[in-house]
Amino acid sequence: MLSKSQIKLITSLKHKKYRQQHALFVAEGVKTISELLDSNLELKVLYTTDPFNIDAKKEVLISENELKRISFLTTPNKALAIFKIPGFKEIDDTRHIIALDSIRDPGNLGTIIRLCDWFGVEHLLCSKETVDCYNPKVIQATMGSITRVNIVYLDLEAFLKSYDGPIYGTYMDGQNVYKQSLPEKGIVVMGNEANGISKTITRLVTHKVAIPRFGDVQATESLNVATAAAVILSEFKRGA
Amino acid sequence: MLSKSQIKLITSLKHKKYRQQHALFVAEGVKTISELLDSNLELKVLYTTDPFNIDAKKEVLISENELKRISFLTTPNKALAIFKIPGFKEIDDTRHIIALDSIRDPGNLGTIIRLCDWFGVEHLLCSKETVDCYNPKVIQATMGSITRVNIVYLDLEAFLKSYDGPIYGTYMDGQNVYKQSLPEKGIVVMGNEANGISKTITRLVTHKVAIPRFGDVQATESLNVATAAAVILSEFKRGA
Repeated sequence: MLSKSQIKLITSLKHKKYRQQHALFVAEGVKTISELLDSNLELKVLYTTDPFNIDAKKEVLISENELKRISFLTTPNKALAIFKIPGFKEIDDTRHIIALDSIRDPGNLGTIIRLCDWFGVEHLLCSKETVDCYNPKVIQATMGSITRVNIVYLDLEAFLKSYDGPIYGTYMDGQNVYKQSLPEKGIVVMGNEANGISKTITRLVTHKVAIPRFGDVQATESLNVATAAAVILSEFKRGA
Repeated sequence: MLSKSQIKLITSLKHKKYRQQHALFVAEGVKTISELLDSNLELKVLYTTDPFNIDAKKEVLISENELKRISFLTTPNKALAIFKIPGFKEIDDTRHIIALDSIRDPGNLGTIIRLCDWFGVEHLLCSKETVDCYNPKVIQATMGSITRVNIVYLDLEAFLKSYDGPIYGTYMDGQNVYKQSLPEKGIVVMGNEANGISKTITRLVTHKVAIPRFGDVQATESLNVATAAAVILSEFKRGA
């Protein structure tokens, strides 16, 4: 049985303000929750229609109707868990780092977190305008990768100013990324979906690169930011 | 002023069955519609709150409230157009071709169409179980690229059986794609989001490739199919 105050807390966690205030976030579905339970994250409470057989003090059996009431999903999937938002680790600036300048779409952020996990990029820096990685849509899109990437929200301009390695950014008029020799250490900045990398950050970029277009060069479209990140990460990691 | 029969037709086009019956599809938003108007597609009718100044017989001015009534979007964007579904061109099998084996997510299909456009892949073959490319969500995700890629729904197994070039497929246990010498001609098959490439199609694949994982190799996740397609296309096109 769910109490009114439990329902109120869960519902409030849809909003970034309350996630930050409580330092809690919501994950849904058996697969996602199982992945998060296998990580270092601290579970606060699990509401589920089928027992997970974890610490009984943290597991609350609920009915399907109760789950419908608290779920953020159109089609709830058996369980909803509340986890504590972890602290972040210090940034190791001797390795590849991805930085996001105002990424707004939760699906794009989720895909980029999965890419970092796949390509072994440990640190993902996000400008303060970037969508919150504990947004429920991001959590659903990352499929557990979020526990393996150190995501840090910071003043991106200040960080880049103090950084002593190469800073790459993707631009339509950059140098062909396939013809660059790419370093062991460096930051790759990916820009906003509509506007690209901001002027302030562009001033700090040391290497402008482009993914060449092989199709109709008259066409105006750009690559989606998450697929552009896939190509750039693949290039950095594939080796010469 | 919208008539009841106009509203009924537009609403019916949410469903594949009626899109096929009428050979019509819906596009929304000024940017997407402008791109489609610039292509070879044939406009049937445009409903808009601001004049586009096109052929007056095909333009119907409507109110914001009327647009809300017919739009498939949560936030309608000034215009909704109905276009005729075009025929498709003959497949040129001397070049790179992408084939989709049961891609179900409209966003993934939209992203893959944009990738084909970017990387100059003219022909995109879709198994009959693949989501319809005239689904409104696909149209919104392709940003006009759909007019530059020849998308053909067919019996994929039969086509691959009759094809005489190399057929690539991505698998967890395939050969490192970064170490392959990739041909000028070939088909790349991308598999279903949950199950990968089906057994029937796997029997016809001549080259199993994998995108190496650089992160924690214990983790179970795979790359999203659209980002995997981005990496594979980039490899095929970048040159040695």
